[in-house]
Amino acid sequence: MTGARSSTRRPGRPPGPSDTRAAILAAASRRFAEVGYDRASLRAIATDAGVDQKLIAHYFGSKQQLFVTAIGLPIDPGAILPAVLAGDRAGLPERLAAALVTVLEQPEVHERLTGIVRGAASSPEMARMMREFLTRAVFEPIAASLDVEQPLLRATLVGSQVVGLLMARYVVAVEPLASLPPQALAAAVAPTLERYLVGPLTGS
Amino acid sequence: MTGARSSTRRPGRPPGPSDTRAAILAAASRRFAEVGYDRASLRAIATDAGVDQKLIAHYFGSKQQLFVTAIGLPIDPGAILPAVLAGDRAGLPERLAAALVTVLEQPEVHERLTGIVRGAASSPEMARMMREFLTRAVFEPIAASLDVEQPLLRATLVGSQVVGLLMARYVVAVEPLASLPPQALAAAVAPTLERYLVGPLTGS
Repeated sequence: MTGARSSTRRPGRPPGPSDTRAAILAAASRRFAEVGYDRASLRAIATDAGVDQKLIAHYFGSKQQLFVTAIGLPIDPGAILPAVLAGDRAGLPERLAAALVTVLEQPEVHERLTGIVRGAASSPEMARMMREFLTRAVFEPIAASLDVEQPLLRATLVGSQVVGLLMARYVVAVEPLASLPPQALAAAVAPTLERYLVGPLTGS
Repeated sequence: MTGARSSTRRPGRPPGPSDTRAAILAAASRRFAEVGYDRASLRAIATDAGVDQKLIAHYFGSKQQLFVTAIGLPIDPGAILPAVLAGDRAGLPERLAAALVTVLEQPEVHERLTGIVRGAASSPEMARMMREFLTRAVFEPIAASLDVEQPLLRATLVGSQVVGLLMARYVVAVEPLASLPPQALAAAVAPTLERYLVGPLTGS
């Protein structure tokens, strides 16, 4: 997060694409940490980086994609969720469980997510960034695909089980959960996701 | 973890109870970090601390209680679980959910547990300590109270949901999960614990 802006002003060399991209990322990282995801505007990030706002769209696409790159998220929910949510609703819990387990099983994914959990547990700014981003990019899209009461609560309950699996299976690595085959894990978790998503929220 | 031993050797003052206690805690913290919970022996900790092993029992009781104090756990599972597990088995999920929510709701508990999550996500030694301790002090006692197949897997699945609630409700604090009344939270989670503990692990 340091040095990128000054590199765009290195004397004797005109700023190139990698300088511009780095300047945008540095400005975005600072701005997201300072005001959170929701209140960080692309206009302000462009001003901070000293670039035209159109260049942000050019290099990163959406604000969501800029955040994914700036924070170093190993997965872009926008690239995964639409396919999971688009299918028939009855199969949603199984599709979601399978997609989650497939993604979490990748070492670069769960290792980087572990770093983000560590950051969220260390820094209120990181916690706010992730809270706002997850709400906009994950929980609200899931909630919008549900036709039940309390859809956002349901999506966040799913989130609680997913981050718990990250911690228990990959970080603390309690057995036998840590060595459960991925398919068995998806099968064990799918009914939980199903109830959270579409079942009765209290009692059974 | 530093300074406690040397304080027992401060010249001009004979070692007193608080020095002895501090020396034991310092030795225990080091030993647990170095070899984990399972392989840390009270004999070795006593030797490291330069005290008679009986003094560990005198000051802390069991190895489990020594660990709870040395690591700064805000709750001793050994003080909570027996009552939860002792009642009728049909009511176990509700009792466990109610006890968990009651405990987690205390700020000093979830704040300290957040620090432990941060430590486990930062340090393989901390992750190992917690893995071994949770297995011995939480998951195995729960599993021993169940009369179903794969009891230890079931207990660890419960653990995954609990640490996930800690992260989602208190650390990242996603809404509306973060402000859900405790009783509603316990009601929403109890059926998950029930299936993990005694229900079908796959399918529904």
